[in-house]
Amino acid sequence: MPQLGLLHRRAWAALLGQLLRPPRVVCLGAARSHSQVAEAVLASQLKPHQEKSNFILKTPKGTRDFSPQQMAVREKILDIIVSCFKRHGAKGLDTPAFELKEMLTEKYGEDSGLIYDLKDQGGELLSLRYDLTVPFARYMAMNKLKKMKRYHVGKVWRRESPTIVQGRYREFCQCDFDIAGDFDPMIPDAECLKIICEILTGLQLGDFLIKVNDRRILDGMFAICGVPESKFRAICSSIDKLDKISWKDVRHEMVTEKGLAPEVADRIGDYVQCHGGLSLVEQMFQDPRLSQSKQALEGLGDLKLLLEYLTLFGIAEKICFDLSLARGLDYYTGVIYEAVLLQTPAPAEEEPLNVGSVAAGGRYDGLVGMFNPKGHKVPCVGLSIGVERIFSIVEQRMKTFGEKIRTTETQVFVATPQKNFLQERLKLIAELWDAGIKAELLYKNNPKLLTQLHYCENMGIPLVVIIGEQELKEGVIKLRSVATREEVAIKRENIVAEIQKRLFES
Amino acid sequence: MPQLGLLHRRAWAALLGQLLRPPRVVCLGAARSHSQVAEAVLASQLKPHQEKSNFILKTPKGTRDFSPQQMAVREKILDIIVSCFKRHGAKGLDTPAFELKEMLTEKYGEDSGLIYDLKDQGGELLSLRYDLTVPFARYMAMNKLKKMKRYHVGKVWRRESPTIVQGRYREFCQCDFDIAGDFDPMIPDAECLKIICEILTGLQLGDFLIKVNDRRILDGMFAICGVPESKFRAICSSIDKLDKISWKDVRHEMVTEKGLAPEVADRIGDYVQCHGGLSLVEQMFQDPRLSQSKQALEGLGDLKLLLEYLTLFGIAEKICFDLSLARGLDYYTGVIYEAVLLQTPAPAEEEPLNVGSVAAGGRYDGLVGMFNPKGHKVPCVGLSIGVERIFSIVEQRMKTFGEKIRTTETQVFVATPQKNFLQERLKLIAELWDAGIKAELLYKNNPKLLTQLHYCENMGIPLVVIIGEQELKEGVIKLRSVATREEVAIKRENIVAEIQKRLFES
Repeated sequence: MPQLGLLHRRAWAALLGQLLRPPRVVCLGAARSHSQVAEAVLASQLKPHQEKSNFILKTPKGTRDFSPQQMAVREKILDIIVSCFKRHGAKGLDTPAFELKEMLTEKYGEDSGLIYDLKDQGGELLSLRYDLTVPFARYMAMNKLKKMKRYHVGKVWRRESPTIVQGRYREFCQCDFDIAGDFDPMIPDAECLKIICEILTGLQLGDFLIKVNDRRILDGMFAICGVPESKFRAICSSIDKLDKISWKDVRHEMVTEKGLAPEVADRIGDYVQCHGGLSLVEQMFQDPRLSQSKQALEGLGDLKLLLEYLTLFGIAEKICFDLSLARGLDYYTGVIYEAVLLQTPAPAEEEPLNVGSVAAGGRYDGLVGMFNPKGHKVPCVGLSIGVERIFSIVEQRMKTFGEKIRTTETQVFVATPQKNFLQERLKLIAELWDAGIKAELLYKNNPKLLTQLHYCENMGIPLVVIIGEQELKEGVIKLRSVATREEVAIKRENIVAEIQKRLFES
Repeated sequence: MPQLGLLHRRAWAALLGQLLRPPRVVCLGAARSHSQVAEAVLASQLKPHQEKSNFILKTPKGTRDFSPQQMAVREKILDIIVSCFKRHGAKGLDTPAFELKEMLTEKYGEDSGLIYDLKDQGGELLSLRYDLTVPFARYMAMNKLKKMKRYHVGKVWRRESPTIVQGRYREFCQCDFDIAGDFDPMIPDAECLKIICEILTGLQLGDFLIKVNDRRILDGMFAICGVPESKFRAICSSIDKLDKISWKDVRHEMVTEKGLAPEVADRIGDYVQCHGGLSLVEQMFQDPRLSQSKQALEGLGDLKLLLEYLTLFGIAEKICFDLSLARGLDYYTGVIYEAVLLQTPAPAEEEPLNVGSVAAGGRYDGLVGMFNPKGHKVPCVGLSIGVERIFSIVEQRMKTFGEKIRTTETQVFVATPQKNFLQERLKLIAELWDAGIKAELLYKNNPKLLTQLHYCENMGIPLVVIIGEQELKEGVIKLRSVATREEVAIKRENIVAEIQKRLFES
């Protein structure tokens, strides 16, 4: 079992530690949806947004804001993911949110209808990026690069019917890692699977399994089952739905919608029920029909090598060769994979959250070549972490347990028990900021001491510095621990050093 | 002068340290524009992107990719900025890239034409966000929040004529910090200016000045000069151009395009040439005409208080009251500010980079109320760091000095001098990854040792572990320092601990 490094374990443990404490922090920006309808009704009556009588205060369908509490969780999740990508030597890359429309055409097969186009306001025809893979391939081709290992964290947009309960949105974040370049077989592919294992282990989401297959095995299977080559991708797309709908429904779609002969569909049905380990690979090598496909044999050969490398990486028990795994996107050419959680982390009495796959990817050796004027290929393999689904799981877990997380990192609060001490508070807090200490005060001329101390308790701020007449006269600052309520007087000139010492020790 | 905390100084010093080293790292993805024309010609002849005869491999006009080298610099700059926001107790927030179109209307005045609309593909009418301020106000109103201190780092989009040399793009990143809530006057405003100072100081961009003015002083000045109230915002917009075009041209625009009487324009001209410190505020209090405007007096009173607080913060010498500062956006209602660099950081022989303002902001007390069905106001003040311009400055500085920066963080490279050692290399690197060590190997079955060592030198990887027949037999791993070329044999079972010790010490 892979383990994460000290630093990352600590970062995540800190979050989990936060989760286990009793809820203290006021949660901002929650429970929006309930108030939207009432808001809309009000908005249509009284209108600072005057002329629009049907004005509704909302985010676009399928999108959402991330509140500070959500952002704090998100930041910790992304930190674990990006740390792993960097641990494997990946460079950062960013591309524009939109691409020339023609860059995205003929890349996504049946899903192309989900691409958001920008309005033609003169100039170029533009579309919002649909994933991070096609922009990466465009970047490789445009800059004539032959190899690169990069990660990219960014938003993508798809006009899907949003079923938000399952963590599907029209705007969502992708975390991609890809290795481009002409290397010896299956070494980069194995690293991609290792990365998925490290990330899912590091995020402590419970047990998981990575299904693996190969497009060449699928294509070989289609060919020997009698699927016409023109229908390979369409049938692939149907097979891809097997984790959501039953074989019966998939068979129905293939026969009635995609015009496949029923006996061909049934032959496919025999294969797609197979899943197992190395022994299934060996069995398929011996399969009298499949072994007649050169393509399938190539795929099986690579899969065998891949499993050997994954054994060396110590993650073979996480891998399952699954002939029903198809992946929807057109551009895959070799090994494909998809990680699923084996149990929902929600407790038994809760309705389990259907999260689908939490990571996926595969080999796409032809995509960069589609952008190259001479068709020069750059083989690629990569993975994408389903961070929105992971985020939904963690969010549900926090909701179930009534857990909260700090939304700020403030270390010290600057307070006063007296009136007319704003000037001293401002001088003192500037000193703290200039020393790199995270500090806050209330934006009031004369706040009550109790209000100030309550703020610290609510926000989880550990230290308070207090300045009043007495302290000013004696040249000291009172330093108070919020947890123990202990107070000590520190010489004014030593206060920064004392705070830094306390923060370092904690 | 504000100083940044130890951690942040260190992070930035590490970058600057990198900059001072001789260039070693190969720069990926550079110099794209020169090859685009040739690429386009080729693409139109030989076409994997078949039917499009005018296919050009490029990013949309006014947008760009960020190469790994650019991303590394960007990450360090953003880290300094976000650290400062967190030091001041800000919470994170994220909003969708697009909003309902009606959310953005009537917010930006003359600039509204620059908003990107999405194509009507059925459903809601959507526009890409134009800044992060209006989405923040929408969020506050939608969730009925009365106060919040948040930061937001994200991309925004404006259909401007891109003059890329000045660091202006159609897609760019904004780093915003805002304080919403009904507080005592000028305390949050002063903190915003303190934050700008801390960030610009921390980024070591050279000396800077923050121009300050107040919309109420401007409006009072317009009124007493004889500008009709209906033209206040339009004239504001003209005044805002004074840092780019001369007074003569601004006057011409006001008179011919905006229909202002020439004598009114001249009266404005007398005021907008004034800039100074507290003494200018006092002088304006005594100005026989301006002192007749209640609005202007309110603005001057707040400005006086602000300067008092900024003195307590130790940054008064960075501030300049400038009556020509107007800011383009419609929504400002009180104090406004804009930070400019006093000298370009480029050496004298280089053409100075005209970067304009590097940070700006102000008070906007009416914006949240525009979204509230009852018009309930939530006063706000905030700032935006011009991170693209800052990025251009740092990039030009690096170019001038031929500086490079590491694009990966890899600590250890796993090498072998012998053939057929892939299995051992894979086992070893998995151990390193599982211990949280950043490690790489070449994706070749039998790479040459020299190729492997060269890779380490090129990429700045400090340590190499070497495994071969001899080492395998003796149960050791060779640990090599790339800089000193020293090698020691470490017992296999101690290699992880030894590497961690070395990394901790360095």
